[in-house]
Amino acid sequence: MRLFFAMAYPAGLVDLIDDLYQQGVNEAVICPGSRNAPIMLALVRHGGFRCYSIADERSAGFFGLGLALKSKKPVILCCTSGSAGLNFAPAVVEAFFQEVPLIVLTADRPAEWIGQWDGQTIYQNQLYGKHVKHFESFEAFKPHQLVQQAIHFPQGPVHMNIPIAEPFYPAKGEELPVRTSLVASQPVDQVFTWDKSLLNDIKDQKIMITVGQRPYDKVENELFEQLALKGIPVIGDATANLPAACELHHDLLLANEALWPNYQADFHLHFGKSFVSKRIKQMMRMFKPTKSYLIHPNPIERPDPFQSLTDVIQTDTVSVLKELVSKDLQANPSFKTWNPSIQPAFFEKQAWNELHIYNAIIQQISQQEVDIHVGNSLAIRYINWTEAKLHGTEVFSNRGTSGIDGSLSTAVGASQSTDKLTVALLGDVSFQYDRNALWNYYLGSNLRIIVMNNAGGAIFQILDGAKDLAELSEFMVTKQHITAENTAKDAGLTYLKAQNFNELNSILPDFFAPGAIGKLLEIFTDSTENTAALQAYMALFKH
Amino acid sequence: MRLFFAMAYPAGLVDLIDDLYQQGVNEAVICPGSRNAPIMLALVRHGGFRCYSIADERSAGFFGLGLALKSKKPVILCCTSGSAGLNFAPAVVEAFFQEVPLIVLTADRPAEWIGQWDGQTIYQNQLYGKHVKHFESFEAFKPHQLVQQAIHFPQGPVHMNIPIAEPFYPAKGEELPVRTSLVASQPVDQVFTWDKSLLNDIKDQKIMITVGQRPYDKVENELFEQLALKGIPVIGDATANLPAACELHHDLLLANEALWPNYQADFHLHFGKSFVSKRIKQMMRMFKPTKSYLIHPNPIERPDPFQSLTDVIQTDTVSVLKELVSKDLQANPSFKTWNPSIQPAFFEKQAWNELHIYNAIIQQISQQEVDIHVGNSLAIRYINWTEAKLHGTEVFSNRGTSGIDGSLSTAVGASQSTDKLTVALLGDVSFQYDRNALWNYYLGSNLRIIVMNNAGGAIFQILDGAKDLAELSEFMVTKQHITAENTAKDAGLTYLKAQNFNELNSILPDFFAPGAIGKLLEIFTDSTENTAALQAYMALFKH
Repeated sequence: MRLFFAMAYPAGLVDLIDDLYQQGVNEAVICPGSRNAPIMLALVRHGGFRCYSIADERSAGFFGLGLALKSKKPVILCCTSGSAGLNFAPAVVEAFFQEVPLIVLTADRPAEWIGQWDGQTIYQNQLYGKHVKHFESFEAFKPHQLVQQAIHFPQGPVHMNIPIAEPFYPAKGEELPVRTSLVASQPVDQVFTWDKSLLNDIKDQKIMITVGQRPYDKVENELFEQLALKGIPVIGDATANLPAACELHHDLLLANEALWPNYQADFHLHFGKSFVSKRIKQMMRMFKPTKSYLIHPNPIERPDPFQSLTDVIQTDTVSVLKELVSKDLQANPSFKTWNPSIQPAFFEKQAWNELHIYNAIIQQISQQEVDIHVGNSLAIRYINWTEAKLHGTEVFSNRGTSGIDGSLSTAVGASQSTDKLTVALLGDVSFQYDRNALWNYYLGSNLRIIVMNNAGGAIFQILDGAKDLAELSEFMVTKQHITAENTAKDAGLTYLKAQNFNELNSILPDFFAPGAIGKLLEIFTDSTENTAALQAYMALFKH
Repeated sequence: MRLFFAMAYPAGLVDLIDDLYQQGVNEAVICPGSRNAPIMLALVRHGGFRCYSIADERSAGFFGLGLALKSKKPVILCCTSGSAGLNFAPAVVEAFFQEVPLIVLTADRPAEWIGQWDGQTIYQNQLYGKHVKHFESFEAFKPHQLVQQAIHFPQGPVHMNIPIAEPFYPAKGEELPVRTSLVASQPVDQVFTWDKSLLNDIKDQKIMITVGQRPYDKVENELFEQLALKGIPVIGDATANLPAACELHHDLLLANEALWPNYQADFHLHFGKSFVSKRIKQMMRMFKPTKSYLIHPNPIERPDPFQSLTDVIQTDTVSVLKELVSKDLQANPSFKTWNPSIQPAFFEKQAWNELHIYNAIIQQISQQEVDIHVGNSLAIRYINWTEAKLHGTEVFSNRGTSGIDGSLSTAVGASQSTDKLTVALLGDVSFQYDRNALWNYYLGSNLRIIVMNNAGGAIFQILDGAKDLAELSEFMVTKQHITAENTAKDAGLTYLKAQNFNELNSILPDFFAPGAIGKLLEIFTDSTENTAALQAYMALFKH
C-alpha cells in the first residue's frame, strides 16, 4: 500500500494528471522550479508521459509548440510561480493564433498569498488574457475542461493555474497518493452543419480558392490537386503545404499590379489561416470577389484577411472540397499568365546572394525526406520566391503571431517528435534571439540548422521607405556581428560554414547525411548584394 | 519650413513624445521593428532622448528597468506589434512589484485589423493585465496620464498601445511634423496625511523595525542608524541597503528556532518592500507583534508579508523615522544574542566552496566604489550569510517577482546610467538564461560580471525535501554544462576564470581595476562541496 503525503500534496492533482493521460495527452515540457514540484512528480511518476526538462521558459514554450505541431495532440507546459508563466506567453499566443493545442499548468501560491510581497508571486489568474481558449483554476475533484477545450476546433492553448501550499516535497520514502476518483470531464459541443446549397450558384462562376497556413494533409491535398487539374486556381504560400499541381508562384505573378483586375473572382473560398504574401492580400482587398467564404470549423472572432468576407461556412475542409470536386466547374485560367522562362534564366547562373542560395538549398531539401521549420522575416518570404519548391516537404513556420522569438525552439521541439530530419532555416537575428533553444539536452541527431548570416535583420533594407531612413542602421536593422559558431559548439553541434558556392555545394550532401549529432550550417552573405539581386529579380515580374 | 508626412504619420505622436520629455523623461529603449518606426523616429529625431537599440525584447525590458533603477526616472520601452510586447512582460511585471517607473509604448495595427489573421497582430489592449498601473490607448491630442501614473506612488509601469497605419516611413526628404499643441496632462492626487498619534503608545513597548527591499537613501539611513544606536533592532536583508550599524545577521540568528519567542515584538514597523530571508517571515508569522504597521505612501492591495499587519500608515519613510528618533524609546536587546566568534572562525581558513568564495568576493567588493546587481536564487541568499557585508555599496536585485529572467540585462542597463563599476553577481543558470543581455552594443568598460558556475541550479540541493527526490537531478536542478567563455568572447568581454583561491586572489585586483572593455569572471565550484560547507555553517547557528 502506498503512503500518502503527510499534508502538502494537493488532493486531486494525481487524478488530474491521470485524467489528461486518459484523454490522450502524453507529452510534457517541465521547467525546473520548486513550487511546481508536485505537478512535476505527478507527471514523471505517472509513467505515461514523455517528460522534457527545459530551463528557459520562453524556449520551453516554443519547444512544446513544436511537439504539438508534430504529434497533433495537446502538450503540457508546466512551470513554477511568478514570471516563469510570463515567459510562456509568446508561445501560448502563437499557439492561439496558429490553433495548436497546449495545456499550460502554472503552479501558484495559495490565493491568500497573492499581493503580499512574497517571492515569485504575481497575478496568475487569467495571465494570458484573451490569448487562451479557456482558463480555469485548479480545484480538487472539480470536473475540468482542459483537453476538450484544447482540442475542440479551433484547437488552441488552455491554462490552468494550480495553487500549491508548502511543503512541496514528500518526506523521504513517501509516495504519491494513488488515484482516488476519476475527474469527470464535461463534454463540449462539437457539431456543425453546413449546407451544400451554399455552392449551388458556383457553376458558371469565376472561382478562386485561397489556402492560408495549414498542416500538410494527404486527403485534402488530393482533393486540392483535383481542383487544380480542373483549372481552378488554388493559391497558397509555402506554409499552405499544397501539392505541386497547385503551384502558381502567385507572389511573383502579383508583382505586376497591372494584371490585378484580371484576377478578380466571382466566387472565392478560403481554407486554412493566414497568408505570408502581402501582394495577394493587397490584390484581393482591391478587387474583391462577389462572394467570399471562409471555411473553418469554428473561427474565433470572424477573421477576414482579405477584407472581402461574405460569410463563414462552419465545417471542415474535406466536406467542402468533396462537394466541389463533384461539381461541374468552369476553369479560371487568369492565373496562368506566367512566362516560364524567367526563373530558369535567372537561377541558371549562380551568384552568391541569398536568393540563389535559398534556391539551391530548397532544391536540395526538396530531394530529402525532411520537415522544415522556416524563420519569420525574410526566410519565410524567400521560399515564396525561389524557383525550387517544397511540395514534398511539410513546411512549418510560426505565422500565428509571426514572432521572431521561438522559431528555433519550435524546430527543436518538433525534432523530438519525429525520426525525420528536421531542418530549421532562419536568419542570424532569429537564431541569436532564440539561441537558448540549444540550451537543453534534446538536440537529436536529426536536427539540422541553417543560419543565413547577413549580419543583421536585412528585411528592412528591401522595404520601400524604410531603406532610406537615416535611423535604419541603428534602430531598425538589428545589426549583429555574432556568428553561430560558439553557440553551436557550446551545444555540442557540428558546425559548418559556407562563404561561396564551392563550399556550399561540397558541404550540403554531408550536411543532410545522417550523423551521430545534430549539425548547424552558417551561410555568410553580404546584405548589399542580397538586396541588389532581389530587386533585379522582382523587376523581372513587374511588367 | 518642415514638410509633413503625406498621410501616415500619426497626428499627435510627436506631441506625445515631446510631452513625455517636458515631463522629465529622457531615456528610451527601442526594439527594432517596422510598425513602431514612427515612434522610433519621434524619439530619435526629438533630440532630447538617449536612445538604445536592443533586439531581444525580453532583455531590452530589463535593460530599461536597470536604467530606471539608476536614474529614478521613467524610461520608455518601445516595440513593434505582435509578440514583441509579450517579451516585455517579465520586466514590466518586475517593475510593477519593485515599483519602478516604465512607460511602455507598443505599436499596434489599427483596431479594424485585430483578429483578422494579419501578421504580428495579437490582442494588445490591456496586454499586461493587472501588472501595469495604468493602460490607455493612443488618441491624438487626448490628454494622457503616462508620466503622472508612472511616478505617482507607488511608482510603476504604465502602458500605451499606439495603433499605426501604413505606410510607416516618411517619403525621402520628408520631415516629422512640428509639435502642434501641448498635450495637457491631467494631474493626479498625491496628498497623504498621517497622524503622529499612531506612535503615541510606543514608549514602553518592545519595538522592532523591519526594512524590506528599498533603494539606498542617505537621509533615511542616517535616521535608521540613529534608531539602531538607540538599541532598536532595524532588520533588513542586503537588499534593504541599510547602514552597517543595523547589521544583525538576522538570517543566521534566526536559524535557531528555539530563540524565536524571545524576538516577539510589541510594536512593529515595516518599511520598504519584500524580504529574501524566509526565516524572518516564518518567525514573524508565528510570533506576531501586538501592533504591526506598514509604512508606504500608497500600497496597491494591502501587502502583508508577515501576516501580522494591523494597519497601513500612508506616508513616506522619513516622516515616520523623524518622529521615531525624536521619541524616548526603550532599547530591545533581544536580537543581540550573537556569538561574534562563529563567523571569524569559520571564514578564517579558506576552502574552495561558494560560501567562502562569496565571502571573499563581498570583502573585495565592499572596498570598491561599485553598484552590485545580485542574481536571484542562491546568489541573493549567500550575501545574507557571509561575514563580509555590503553596507557601503548599493545592492540591486529583481525581487519584485524574483524571476531568473533578466538579472543580467538589468545590470547592463543600469551600468549605462552610471560611471561607477557595475557588478553583476549571479549563478550560471541565471547567466545563461539571460545571455542575450550581452547581445547589444551597450557593454561599457564599467561592466563586471561574476558567474558562479556550479554546473546547474544548485539551490534545490540545499532544500530539505527536494534534495532527496529521485527527480531532482533531471527535472528540478537545471543541469547545465555550458561555460560563459564563448558567450563572453562573442560579446567582446575580457574572460577570466578561477578554480581555486590562488587564481581568484590573483585575479580579483585585476578584475576590479579599470579597463578598456568590460570583464567577466567565471568561478567554478563543485556543488557537493558547496552544499556540505553550507550545511556545516548553518549547523553552527542552530543551537
